[in-house]
Amino acid sequence: MIARCQRLATFTEEPGRTTRTFLSPPMRDCHREIAEWIRPLGAEIKIDAVGNLRARYAGADPMAPRLLVGSHLDTVPDAGPFDGVLGVVLGLALLELLQGERLPFGIEVIGFSEEEGVRFGMPFIGSGALVGTIDEEMLEKQDRRGVSVRAAIEDFGLNPSDIPDARLTDDILGYIEFHIEQGPVLEELGLPLAAVETIAGQTRLEVIFVGRANHAGTTPMRLRRDAIAGAAEWITAVEREGNRVSGLVATIGAIHAKPGAANVIPGEAHLTLDLRHAVNEVRLTAVDTLIRSGEEIAAHRGLSLRHSILMNQPSVLMNSQFVGYVGEAIRRTGCKPHRMASGAGHDAMVLAEKIPTAMMFLRTPGGISHHPEETVNIEDVEKALEAGMNLLKLIASSPALKQQRVQRA
Amino acid sequence: MIARCQRLATFTEEPGRTTRTFLSPPMRDCHREIAEWIRPLGAEIKIDAVGNLRARYAGADPMAPRLLVGSHLDTVPDAGPFDGVLGVVLGLALLELLQGERLPFGIEVIGFSEEEGVRFGMPFIGSGALVGTIDEEMLEKQDRRGVSVRAAIEDFGLNPSDIPDARLTDDILGYIEFHIEQGPVLEELGLPLAAVETIAGQTRLEVIFVGRANHAGTTPMRLRRDAIAGAAEWITAVEREGNRVSGLVATIGAIHAKPGAANVIPGEAHLTLDLRHAVNEVRLTAVDTLIRSGEEIAAHRGLSLRHSILMNQPSVLMNSQFVGYVGEAIRRTGCKPHRMASGAGHDAMVLAEKIPTAMMFLRTPGGISHHPEETVNIEDVEKALEAGMNLLKLIASSPALKQQRVQRA
Repeated sequence: MIARCQRLATFTEEPGRTTRTFLSPPMRDCHREIAEWIRPLGAEIKIDAVGNLRARYAGADPMAPRLLVGSHLDTVPDAGPFDGVLGVVLGLALLELLQGERLPFGIEVIGFSEEEGVRFGMPFIGSGALVGTIDEEMLEKQDRRGVSVRAAIEDFGLNPSDIPDARLTDDILGYIEFHIEQGPVLEELGLPLAAVETIAGQTRLEVIFVGRANHAGTTPMRLRRDAIAGAAEWITAVEREGNRVSGLVATIGAIHAKPGAANVIPGEAHLTLDLRHAVNEVRLTAVDTLIRSGEEIAAHRGLSLRHSILMNQPSVLMNSQFVGYVGEAIRRTGCKPHRMASGAGHDAMVLAEKIPTAMMFLRTPGGISHHPEETVNIEDVEKALEAGMNLLKLIASSPALKQQRVQRA
Repeated sequence: MIARCQRLATFTEEPGRTTRTFLSPPMRDCHREIAEWIRPLGAEIKIDAVGNLRARYAGADPMAPRLLVGSHLDTVPDAGPFDGVLGVVLGLALLELLQGERLPFGIEVIGFSEEEGVRFGMPFIGSGALVGTIDEEMLEKQDRRGVSVRAAIEDFGLNPSDIPDARLTDDILGYIEFHIEQGPVLEELGLPLAAVETIAGQTRLEVIFVGRANHAGTTPMRLRRDAIAGAAEWITAVEREGNRVSGLVATIGAIHAKPGAANVIPGEAHLTLDLRHAVNEVRLTAVDTLIRSGEEIAAHRGLSLRHSILMNQPSVLMNSQFVGYVGEAIRRTGCKPHRMASGAGHDAMVLAEKIPTAMMFLRTPGGISHHPEETVNIEDVEKALEAGMNLLKLIASSPALKQQRVQRA
């Protein structure tokens, strides 16, 4: 599995580093390579109208419902080999381990074409096609070179009018996504795996402190209205709030001063604030608290504060039954079945709106991701595969499956 | 005088705003206009080899020593009409008020060609030529379009090999510069004029906090090494130090985070720190204190701190006798002769290294400068002119002048 991830990392738009965006030429090479791996497994492969790779491994009954297993095949610029890709490769490894055995349900391994949002600045085009959120407006959105989503689909040899065919059908049992944690929590706990029970909600704001630009040499301290000094006081308040509220993460990722010259007191400070928490109410309270705190700091300093909300994504609960299966599957490998929230968004967040969904996280050494040094422990991947096989068995004997088979019968 | 400043503001490289850099075509128009004003005054005008306008008004004895009076004619981008220009126009007004009367010394009104450092990124090319600091390396320095200082001089119709002729000769009494304060101090004190006794020293640093970039969603607060959070704590310490130490100004003018994405914890924070004080030791102690404070903050947070000193300019004392004359000249207008340090650099700083030099500041409404809204009060300009005439009388009867005349006899 690790060798396969590293092999796919060589399919890139940029020599010397891994960058593979939505419907780029290396994505086609990636599909071709995966098709070679699938060929001996007895699965039927196709590329849907938004470029998702979909490999169907039928159940004992060809009409049996299907479990989706997968993740995404696109990458951020200068990516590591495992983000997304490992979840697809792990799905294939499960089929391989079955050695032709047919289960009471089919398995569809999915490699989503777009999750990162790099090419068109909007994420989840791949999983969006399954839940029916790709609309005309999205199809007209253009990349930096002026190519629309629609044109990109056509250039890849696909037909935008087939997008409805990519939608989830009513014979889908649910979706399981294996993914690296991309954070340091499991490493710190000394655990290889976790069941994800929630994907944290996220609010992203732009905040601007407005003061008065002035000469850095001729303006005494007490006559200043320094926007950066106000912003700095607020950043320390943001950090305190993050530390105070359990599970909250609060990040000032970007900041700049205007006019931004060394010898001019900044008249404006522009910042982004990213706030995430598994519980919507906690997150929204933190947003309010921090805006109020920014306004108070600004008022004390003769500054004003402007803010705008760039994103407000509620948290998404995974399916409790599926989360239970994932936890039990981990427990049967002899590991502690830790449950956690995901601070990052994933395709699972999109599919959870429609079908029972859960995720399994793999420990990420150093918490390093979105970086060429991203790695995994080979033992953790083995554990994940073992847990994956446990999971298939658990689902095979689940009341949910029996109920669905009864309904279809 | 105000109308003349506004007239010169129309000679610009950028329609609709005032931008007149070193040896630009509008500088030639500016020279032509000023030459028209000088013609009736009985002064001899020439443009020296770096483009300084120099108008000599002889004394009663044609061999009498000369007093230099002036400031600069270049501007920052999108400038106001008074920065620099007012000092030149005020020098001309003094000649006009003399109505042909000859003093025991000559007056040379100077309009320096370059003080702001806009075109070549180095200031004081104009006054530098008078004190002999223009060397071959500076002549080869290029502007954004690849034009060297040497080529700019030649393109303006001047000869770089004549630069040595621009140097101060030994018959110069000293230099007086009238300039707007460019800060809010006189306005706050309710005074029109001040005598500048020192130009503050200045240290400019680049400071980099280095932590670890990481995912804003997946990295819990306590496992972060957030460079911007450390920088913010330090900025509040910089501001406290500026407030604590009398006369110190401390400015964080530029800041940015790397990688600088809303959803990534910054791995690096880059800042500039500008520190100024009239007393070198106070300034240098503040530099040390703040670097140490930055290192402590970094150490507590698992960050590291790098810094480099971009500029370290000692303070420059004005000539005490000349400062006394300026103060007395102000007192005789009925105003309080406030003495102050200049937080900004001026041509006077360059000339003070070689000849007795002092400055007179004019109140700047709102402290606004380097901005099209820069203005002056007409009454303050009248007071400055009156003080200027007082100053000429004081110097005419000064022991320094008598001594110089004796020496030359």
